[in-house]
Amino acid sequence: MSDAIEITTLHEMTPGELGDFFALLADKQVLATKDGKPYYRVSFCDAGREVSFPIWSDSTHAAACRDEWQVGDFYKLRAELRDSNYGMQLEIHRIRPVEESDKQDGFDPLMCAPRSKFDPEAMYDEMMQIAEEAIEDEALRELVTGIYESHREELLVMPAAQYNHHSYLSGYLEHVLNVTRNTRMLVEQYHQLYSDADPSIDVGVAVAGAMLHDIGKLRELVTGPAGATYTASGTLIGHILQGRDILREAAVGTEVDADTLLRLEHIIVAHQRLPEWGSPKPPMTPEALIVHHADDLDAKMQMMVAAIAEDPGDGEFTSKRNALRQPIYRGKKEPGEAEEE
Amino acid sequence: MSDAIEITTLHEMTPGELGDFFALLADKQVLATKDGKPYYRVSFCDAGREVSFPIWSDSTHAAACRDEWQVGDFYKLRAELRDSNYGMQLEIHRIRPVEESDKQDGFDPLMCAPRSKFDPEAMYDEMMQIAEEAIEDEALRELVTGIYESHREELLVMPAAQYNHHSYLSGYLEHVLNVTRNTRMLVEQYHQLYSDADPSIDVGVAVAGAMLHDIGKLRELVTGPAGATYTASGTLIGHILQGRDILREAAVGTEVDADTLLRLEHIIVAHQRLPEWGSPKPPMTPEALIVHHADDLDAKMQMMVAAIAEDPGDGEFTSKRNALRQPIYRGKKEPGEAEEE
Amino acid sequence: MSDAIEITTLHEMTPGELGDFFALLADKQVLATKDGKPYYRVSFCDAGREVSFPIWSDSTHAAACRDEWQVGDFYKLRAELRDSNYGMQLEIHRIRPVEESDKQDGFDPLMCAPRSKFDPEAMYDEMMQIAEEAIEDEALRELVTGIYESHREELLVMPAAQYNHHSYLSGYLEHVLNVTRNTRMLVEQYHQLYSDADPSIDVGVAVAGAMLHDIGKLRELVTGPAGATYTASGTLIGHILQGRDILREAAVGTEVDADTLLRLEHIIVAHQRLPEWGSPKPPMTPEALIVHHADDLDAKMQMMVAAIAEDPGDGEFTSKRNALRQPIYRGKKEPGEAEEE
Amino acid sequence: MSDAIEITTLHEMTPGELGDFFALLADKQVLATKDGKPYYRVSFCDAGREVSFPIWSDSTHAAACRDEWQVGDFYKLRAELRDSNYGMQLEIHRIRPVEESDKQDGFDPLMCAPRSKFDPEAMYDEMMQIAEEAIEDEALRELVTGIYESHREELLVMPAAQYNHHSYLSGYLEHVLNVTRNTRMLVEQYHQLYSDADPSIDVGVAVAGAMLHDIGKLRELVTGPAGATYTASGTLIGHILQGRDILREAAVGTEVDADTLLRLEHIIVAHQRLPEWGSPKPPMTPEALIVHHADDLDAKMQMMVAAIAEDPGDGEFTSKRNALRQPIYRGKKEPGEAEEE
Amino acid sequence: MSDAIEITTLHEMTPGELGDFFALLADKQVLATKDGKPYYRVSFCDAGREVSFPIWSDSTHAAACRDEWQVGDFYKLRAELRDSNYGMQLEIHRIRPVEESDKQDGFDPLMCAPRSKFDPEAMYDEMMQIAEEAIEDEALRELVTGIYESHREELLVMPAAQYNHHSYLSGYLEHVLNVTRNTRMLVEQYHQLYSDADPSIDVGVAVAGAMLHDIGKLRELVTGPAGATYTASGTLIGHILQGRDILREAAVGTEVDADTLLRLEHIIVAHQRLPEWGSPKPPMTPEALIVHHADDLDAKMQMMVAAIAEDPGDGEFTSKRNALRQPIYRGKKEPGEAEEE
Amino acid sequence: MSDAIEITTLHEMTPGELGDFFALLADKQVLATKDGKPYYRVSFCDAGREVSFPIWSDSTHAAACRDEWQVGDFYKLRAELRDSNYGMQLEIHRIRPVEESDKQDGFDPLMCAPRSKFDPEAMYDEMMQIAEEAIEDEALRELVTGIYESHREELLVMPAAQYNHHSYLSGYLEHVLNVTRNTRMLVEQYHQLYSDADPSIDVGVAVAGAMLHDIGKLRELVTGPAGATYTASGTLIGHILQGRDILREAAVGTEVDADTLLRLEHIIVAHQRLPEWGSPKPPMTPEALIVHHADDLDAKMQMMVAAIAEDPGDGEFTSKRNALRQPIYRGKKEPGEAEEE
Repeated sequence: MSDAIEITTLHEMTPGELGDFFALLADKQVLATKDGKPYYRVSFCDAGREVSFPIWSDSTHAAACRDEWQVGDFYKLRAELRDSNYGMQLEIHRIRPVEESDKQDGFDPLMCAPRSKFDPEAMYDEMMQIAEEAIEDEALRELVTGIYESHREELLVMPAAQYNHHSYLSGYLEHVLNVTRNTRMLVEQYHQLYSDADPSIDVGVAVAGAMLHDIGKLRELVTGPAGATYTASGTLIGHILQGRDILREAAVGTEVDADTLLRLEHIIVAHQRLPEWGSPKPPMTPEALIVHHADDLDAKMQMMVAAIAEDPGDGEFTSKRNALRQPIYRGKKEPGEAEEE
Repeated sequence: MSDAIEITTLHEMTPGELGDFFALLADKQVLATKDGKPYYRVSFCDAGREVSFPIWSDSTHAAACRDEWQVGDFYKLRAELRDSNYGMQLEIHRIRPVEESDKQDGFDPLMCAPRSKFDPEAMYDEMMQIAEEAIEDEALRELVTGIYESHREELLVMPAAQYNHHSYLSGYLEHVLNVTRNTRMLVEQYHQLYSDADPSIDVGVAVAGAMLHDIGKLRELVTGPAGATYTASGTLIGHILQGRDILREAAVGTEVDADTLLRLEHIIVAHQRLPEWGSPKPPMTPEALIVHHADDLDAKMQMMVAAIAEDPGDGEFTSKRNALRQPIYRGKKEPGEAEEE
Repeated sequence: MSDAIEITTLHEMTPGELGDFFALLADKQVLATKDGKPYYRVSFCDAGREVSFPIWSDSTHAAACRDEWQVGDFYKLRAELRDSNYGMQLEIHRIRPVEESDKQDGFDPLMCAPRSKFDPEAMYDEMMQIAEEAIEDEALRELVTGIYESHREELLVMPAAQYNHHSYLSGYLEHVLNVTRNTRMLVEQYHQLYSDADPSIDVGVAVAGAMLHDIGKLRELVTGPAGATYTASGTLIGHILQGRDILREAAVGTEVDADTLLRLEHIIVAHQRLPEWGSPKPPMTPEALIVHHADDLDAKMQMMVAAIAEDPGDGEFTSKRNALRQPIYRGKKEPGEAEEE
Repeated sequence: MSDAIEITTLHEMTPGELGDFFALLADKQVLATKDGKPYYRVSFCDAGREVSFPIWSDSTHAAACRDEWQVGDFYKLRAELRDSNYGMQLEIHRIRPVEESDKQDGFDPLMCAPRSKFDPEAMYDEMMQIAEEAIEDEALRELVTGIYESHREELLVMPAAQYNHHSYLSGYLEHVLNVTRNTRMLVEQYHQLYSDADPSIDVGVAVAGAMLHDIGKLRELVTGPAGATYTASGTLIGHILQGRDILREAAVGTEVDADTLLRLEHIIVAHQRLPEWGSPKPPMTPEALIVHHADDLDAKMQMMVAAIAEDPGDGEFTSKRNALRQPIYRGKKEPGEAEEE
Repeated sequence: MSDAIEITTLHEMTPGELGDFFALLADKQVLATKDGKPYYRVSFCDAGREVSFPIWSDSTHAAACRDEWQVGDFYKLRAELRDSNYGMQLEIHRIRPVEESDKQDGFDPLMCAPRSKFDPEAMYDEMMQIAEEAIEDEALRELVTGIYESHREELLVMPAAQYNHHSYLSGYLEHVLNVTRNTRMLVEQYHQLYSDADPSIDVGVAVAGAMLHDIGKLRELVTGPAGATYTASGTLIGHILQGRDILREAAVGTEVDADTLLRLEHIIVAHQRLPEWGSPKPPMTPEALIVHHADDLDAKMQMMVAAIAEDPGDGEFTSKRNALRQPIYRGKKEPGEAEEE
Repeated sequence: MSDAIEITTLHEMTPGELGDFFALLADKQVLATKDGKPYYRVSFCDAGREVSFPIWSDSTHAAACRDEWQVGDFYKLRAELRDSNYGMQLEIHRIRPVEESDKQDGFDPLMCAPRSKFDPEAMYDEMMQIAEEAIEDEALRELVTGIYESHREELLVMPAAQYNHHSYLSGYLEHVLNVTRNTRMLVEQYHQLYSDADPSIDVGVAVAGAMLHDIGKLRELVTGPAGATYTASGTLIGHILQGRDILREAAVGTEVDADTLLRLEHIIVAHQRLPEWGSPKPPMTPEALIVHHADDLDAKMQMMVAAIAEDPGDGEFTSKRNALRQPIYRGKKEPGEAEEE
C-alpha cells in the first residue's frame, strides 16, 4: 500500500467512502449457497463497528481468505463501505496483516478491547491536579506524581483487574481516580471534624495513599488485546506487596520522612482490610481506614452498575451471575417505558 | 430555698462566688484525721467541674452527710466556692435533693453524662437543611423530616449506642449527620459519574436512607443518666427492624410511592451489609451500598479517634482495649512535644 | 361449546368415554411418517394423567395445531379417550383455549402443578383445631386464627418455598402444620417438666408462634402455575420481617397484651436461630427455642425423605444432588424386594 | 460411737433434737473475739441444710478443729441442733471422720452434690418402659436394655456433663429420658406422616439411638463428690467414639442385624450434626436427624431454664454469663409480684 | 482356547508376535468407510499399551463385535500384533470373555487401573523394616505388624482414597510409607532435641501411629476395577473411627500397655487435626502432632506434583482444576526445552 | 571499684566467697521488724541465681537502698555470699549502678532474660554448614549466607517471637535451625521420591527458604532486657513483608536468577499458608509447601513441650492456659515416680 491514502477508522467511514483502515478479523465461517457452492462469511471490526459480508469463491481474495486470514489477527484494509440490502458491507481493494511499522500510522493492538467511557488523558490530568491541590508536603507530592509520570503510558491503558471490576482499558485510572476523589472528600471532612485529633488526620497522606493503593497492578497484570492477565510474580506475590515495592523503590533518596513513608506503605498493605480479603494487616490509621472504604465502595459500585447494565433479563432483579454474586434490584419498568427505549 | 437567688452552674462559678446550682454527689468516703476522728470526703460535680472537700464531724451537715446523702443522687446547693491549699472547695450553706419542680429552673438529670462536642440544635438544623436541599421528592422529604420532627426532643439527646461508637449524649445526631454528609457527597458523585444508569442513582433516596438508617434506636435504646440501655424489644427485635417499623408507620397515608418506600426500607434493612454484622439482607441497590459504607466508615472512624484520645499509654500504638479491639497507630511524639502539652 | 356437557377431568375418564375437560398442552413436536409426511405429536395432561398422540396432517385440527396451539397453554377439550395399540389416545371433537369464565366451571390454572399429598382443607381445619385447644388466651387465639381466616384462600394453596423444602402446592400448610404439631408436643412436654419455671413456659405462645413463624411467605412469594416466585419485597426485605409486619398490623386494636405480642414477634424473628441462617436475633425464650427446632427438623426431614424418593439411582446412598447437599442412606434392597414393588 | 443411735440426716433434724448424722465440713475460718481471742467458725452441711457456728478456744473440740478437721472432708457427728439468736447451731457431742464402713449406714460421698429434681429410679423405669413399648425388634431391644442393666448403678447417678447442661447427679438420666421422649413423639409422628417412605422411618432404631446417644459418657466422665471430671480417654477420644465402642462391644454375639447396628452406630456418631459441634459425620438417616434435634433442644432448653433460675439479677433479661452465652428474656415482674415471692 | 500357548501381556508383545493375553475393551465406535460401508473401530488395552484398529464388516468377528463385545469387559485374545501405517494393530485369531478360571492364569481385574510407580512388595517390606528398627516395644511392634500381616493382600493393592491424593492401586502403601518415613525422621529429631522432656517423645508410638493412621481405609473403601468406592459404613462412620476399631480389636489379648494403646488410638483420631478437616479431637501429644504434619504434607505434596504432571496447559501455572483447587507454579520453560521433551 | 578483683557471676559463687559481679535488682519491699522498725528486703539475681536478704535500717546501704536503688536496674556489686538460716544472703561491700564501660568487663543487659538451652554459636555454625552442603547454586548460597553474616550479632540473640513459641534469647536461631533441618530432611526425601518431576523439586531453594522464612523478624522485633517488642513497622507491615524486603535488597546486584529469587520470595510470603494465619498467598510450589509444614510443626512442637514443662499442675493433662490454648496429655505418673522427683 505504498500509494497510501489518509488513514481513517472503520467506524468513522460513511457509506460509499473508500478508506485505508485497521481492523480485526473477528469471525470467519464456511457457508454454502443454495446451489451448494461454498463461500466464507467474514466479520471485520474496530472498537465502534463490526461489518459482516461474504467472500465468494470467485473473489480475488477467496484463496487468501481460506488459507491465510486468521480470526484474531489484525489487518490493514483499503476498502469501500457499502450499504446493501443485507446491511453494511465492505468491498475490499487491498488487504494485508498489520506490520510493526503500522503503529506509526496509529495502529493500536488494543483497538478492539472494551475501554473506559472516560478520557484517559483527562483522568490522568485530574489525578495530577488533585495531587497538586491536596498533597501539601512537597516531597510526598513529588514522590507520588513521580511514580505516575514514570509509568504514564501503562497507567493510561491498564485495566483495574482481570475480571471483577473496571476490567477494561483505562479501568485502572477510572477506578483509582474515583477512589482518590472519594478519599479526598472524606478525609477533608474528617480532618475538619476531628480538628483536635493528635496527630491530626492527614489529608495529603490519605490522598497519596488513594493514588497508590493499587499501583502494584503495574507488576501484577500485563495488558494485552484480550484484557489483563496475571504475571508470575502477580500470582505468587500479589499487587499489594508489589505496590509497596514500587513505592519503596521510588522513595529511595527522596526527602519524604520515614514516618510518612511508613503510613503510606501501611495504606497500601491494609487497603483490603481483612486477611481473607487480601490484606495482611487491618487499617490502623484513620487515613488507611478512609482509603479502604473509598476503594471498596467504588469497586462494588462499578460491579453493581455493570450488573444492571449487562443483565440480559428484564425482571425486577438481575440474576446472581455477576461479579457480586447476588441479585441487584432494578425495579419495575413503568408502563410504556419499554416501548420508548 | 424560697429566697432563691439566680441559678448558676458549678463549672461557671469563680472563687469567692456564692451561688445556687445543681450537682451530682459523685463520691463519699469515710476517712480519719491524724488523731483518729472520722470525717467524710465528698465530691460534687457537674459536666465541667468536680470539687472534693471534707465534711468534718462538727459540721452542720455531718449528720445528713452520713445518713442521707447518696452517691449518684443530684442535689441543689447554695454554696461558696473557695480556693484553698487543697484545691477548690465548697462551703455549703444549704443543700437538698433535687425535686421535680427543679426542672423548671433548668435541672437536667443528664447534666453529668458525657456529650457530643457539637451543638445538637446546630446538627439538627444542618440535617434539616440537607433534607431540604438533597431530597427533591416532596412527599419523601416530608416523610423523613416528619419523622424527625415527631421525635425532635429524643433525637437531640440520644446517644448512638450503649457502647462502641458515639455512645454519649447527642451521639446519635453526630453520627447520623456524618453519615448523611458522607452519603450526600458520595451519592452526588456517583449519580453524576453513572449518569446513564437506568434507573439512575437516586440522591434523594440515599440521603433519606442515611437520615433514617439508625432511626430504630429510638425504640432500641432508652437514654438515662448512666447512658443508653436496651429496651426489651431492642434486645429481642433490634433497631434495624424497629427502624423500618417507624418508617412504615409514618408512611401510612403519605404519597410516597411504593417503590421509593421499598428502596428506603431496604436501605435500613441492609445497612450493616452481612448477616453476621446484623443485616438480614445485603445491599441490593446503589443507594443502600453507599449508606452502608458511609455508616461503617463513620462508626469505625469515631472508634479509632476515640481510641487514640483515650488510650492511657504514650507509646506509638494504643493498646487493643478499645472498641476496634486492635492497636491504633499514633506515631512517635516529636522531641519536646510532650512538655508543651 | 354452548351445548355443554358435564365437565369431567382427564384422569377420571375411562376408555371409550366422551367428555369435556381442561388440559395443559405439555408438549408438541414435529415428526415424520415413514414416507416422509410430517405430523405433530402432542401431549395433553392434567395433574393425574398425560396422553400423547399424533395429529396427522389431514386432521381437521392440523392447521390449528401447527399455527395456534402453544405449549404451556391450557385448553378446554371435548374428546373421546381411546385405548390404542400405542397406549391411550384422544380423539378431539372440539378444542379451544380456556377463558376467564371457565373458572366458574372449575378450571384452575394450578391444576398441573405438584401438590401436597395431604388435603389442604383438612390440614387447615386441624390447624384451627389445634389453635382452639392449645391457645387458651382468647385475644391471642383470635389474633392468630384471624390472620389465617383473612388469608384462607392463599394459605390453602401456597407452597412453603420456591425450592428447598415443601416447594409444592399447599406445601406451606403441610410444613406449618407439622411444625405446629411438633411444637405442641414439645412445649406441652417442657411446660410440665419445668412446672416451677418462672415465668412458666407458655404453650399458647409457642403454638401461636409455630402457626405464624412463616406467615411472611404470604408477602415474600407469589404462587403461579410454575410454582412460587419471589416478590420484590420478598427479596429486598424477606419473609421474617414481613411476617412480623402481618402480625403487628393484625394486632392493632386487639387486646393481646404487649409482652405476649413481643414474645410472638420474637419467635418469628428468631426462628432460624443464627444470623447466617437468616435470623437477626437468636432465640431468647424457651418458646422461640422450641419453634426453631420444630421448624428446622421438619424442613430437613422433608428434604431427606424427598431426596430418597426422588434419587434416580438405586445404590445404598442417594447422590449429593438434593436440597441437603449430602448423601442420604437408603440401605440395601433385600433380595427379591425390587420385584415386588 | 458404739452406742449407736438411729442415723438421721442434718436437714431432717428439728431444733432440740440430738442425732447421729453425716455431714461435710464446708468451711472453717479463724476469727477473733472482741477482746482478741481467736476462735474458729465452722460450717457443716448436707444436701439440704448448712449450719455455721463457732468453736471457742475452750471447747473440747478446739484442738481437733484447729489441727485435724479438713474442709472438704466428711464427718460423722452426734450433735444437738439448737436454734440460737445467731441462727441454727450444732452442739457437738462426738465427731469423727467417716469410715469405709459408714457406707453400710447410708453414708454417700455424693450426698452434698447437686442432683436432679427427678427420682432416678423412676426415670430409669420409664426409660425401660419406653424401650419395651417402642422397640419392637426383640434383639435390638435386648441389646439396648442390656447395656443399661449392665451399667445401672452408674447411670442412676451420672451427670450429663461436667459443665454446660444437666451437670448434676442423675443429670444423664434426666437428659437422656427427655431426649428419648422427644424422639419417640417425633419419630412416631414422622413414621405415620411418611408412611410410604421406603425404607420406612424406624421408630425402634430412633428410640434405641436416643437411649444410647450419650452412653459414651460412661467412659468419658468419672462422677465424684465435686461433680464429673474427664477421664484421659474422654479427653483424647471423646464420648461419641466411646459410646459407639460400648454399643459394638455389647452387640457381639447378639442377633441384631448388621444394617440395624450400623444405623444405630450412625445415630451416635452423627448426633451433634456438624464437625465443629463434635460429630465426624452429619445425620444421613431420618432417625439420626430426629435424635439430633431431640438432643439439641433438650440440652439448650435446660441451659435456658437454668440461666433464668440462677441469674442473680432481676432485670428483664439475664446476663450473658450462662451456658448459652447470651441473654435470656425473663420479662417484667408484674407489680406486687416481687413481694409475694 | 484349549490349545493354550504361553500367556503373555499386550504391552510386552513385539510386532509380529502371536500371543494369548488378557485385555480390556476400552472403546468401540461405529464409523463408515469412504463409500459408506459401516465398520467398528475398537480399542483393547492393558496397563501399558492401548491398540486401536478396525473390525471390517466382512471380518469373522464383525457380528460378535457388533452384538456381543461390551466396552468395559475383559477378554482373552489370541492375536498377532502388527505394525501398520496406521500404528499398531491386532489381528485377532480367537477372542472370548474372561472366565473365573482365568485368574489362575494370571488374569487380574485390576490390570488396567492406574497404579503406583513403586513396587508394592518393596514398599511393604520397607514398612516392616522400619517397624523392626523403630518400634522398640515388642508388644507394640507385634500389634502393628500383626495388623499389616492380617491384611497383607488388601494393603498391597488398596488406593489411599477415591479421589484426592494417591487414588491409584497401591496408593495406600505409597502414602503411608511416605508418612512413616517422614514421621520417623521428624520424631527421631525431636526425641533427641527435647531429650529432657517428661514423658520423653516416643519414637515407637509415633512410628506405629504413622503406620496405622489410615488403616481404617480397609473398611471405608472397596477396591475395584474402577478405583476405590465407599462402603456404607465408610460413609456413615468413616475411616478414622474404623481404623481405631481395627486397632482395638487387634489389641485385645496383647500385652500392649493401656497408656500406649490410648496414645496410639489418639494419633488415629487426631491425625486430621481440626474438626472441619475430619478429626473429632486435635493432637494433644507430640507424637500425634508429628503424624498430622507428616500426613498432611505428603497428601498435599502428591496432589501438587500430580497437578503439575497432569495439567493439560503449558503456562507458568497450572489451572485451578486439581485436587488442591489452586494454581501451582511450574515456571517458564527454558528456550529449546520444549523440543527436547 | 578501682581496686578491681576478678569479675565473677552470682550463680557461680560459693558460700563464703567474696566477688565482684553484676546483678539485677529484681525486687525491693518495705517490711517491719517485730518491734515495728522498718527495713527493706531486696532480691538480686542473674540468669542462674536469685538471692533475697534484708537491708536493715542501720546498714550503711540503708539510705541508698531507700532512695536510689531501682527495681529493674542493674548493679555492680562487691559482696560476700553467705549461707544463713534464712537461705543464701549477700553481705554487700560495695555497690553502684552499671556503667557503659562495664560492658567491656562482660556486663550484658540481657543477662537475666531466659535463653535457649542451645549454644547460639554452635547453632549458627550448623546453619552455615547446612547452607554449604545443601544449597548447590553458589549465587543463591552466597545471598543467603550473606544475609546471615550481615546480621550475625542480632541473629545470635534474637527471640523468635514476643510470645507464643521460642520467645527467649536465641529462640530465633533455635527455631529456624529446626525448620531448616526439617526442611532439608523432607525436601531431600521428596526430591528423590519424585525424581521425574519437572521442574524437579529444588533442595537448595527449599533450604534457603527455610533459613530466610522468618528473617523479617529482624525488622519486626526489637530485642530488649524484657524480651522482644514490636517495632512500628513490625505492627503496621509485618515480618512476612519485611523479610521479603531484606531478601530483595540483598539480591540487588547478585547473580541469583530471577525465577529462583521469585520462588524464594514466594516461600517467605506463603509460609503461614492461609490468609487468616498471616500469608497473603498459599504455597504454590513444593518447596513452599515443605517449608510451611516444617515451620508449623516446629512452632507447635515447642509450644507443646513448653506447655508440659511449665504447667503448674500434676494431672494427666495440662490446663488450657498455654500457647496452644488446649490441654496437652502428659499421662499418669508411674507409682513411686512422684517421690523421686
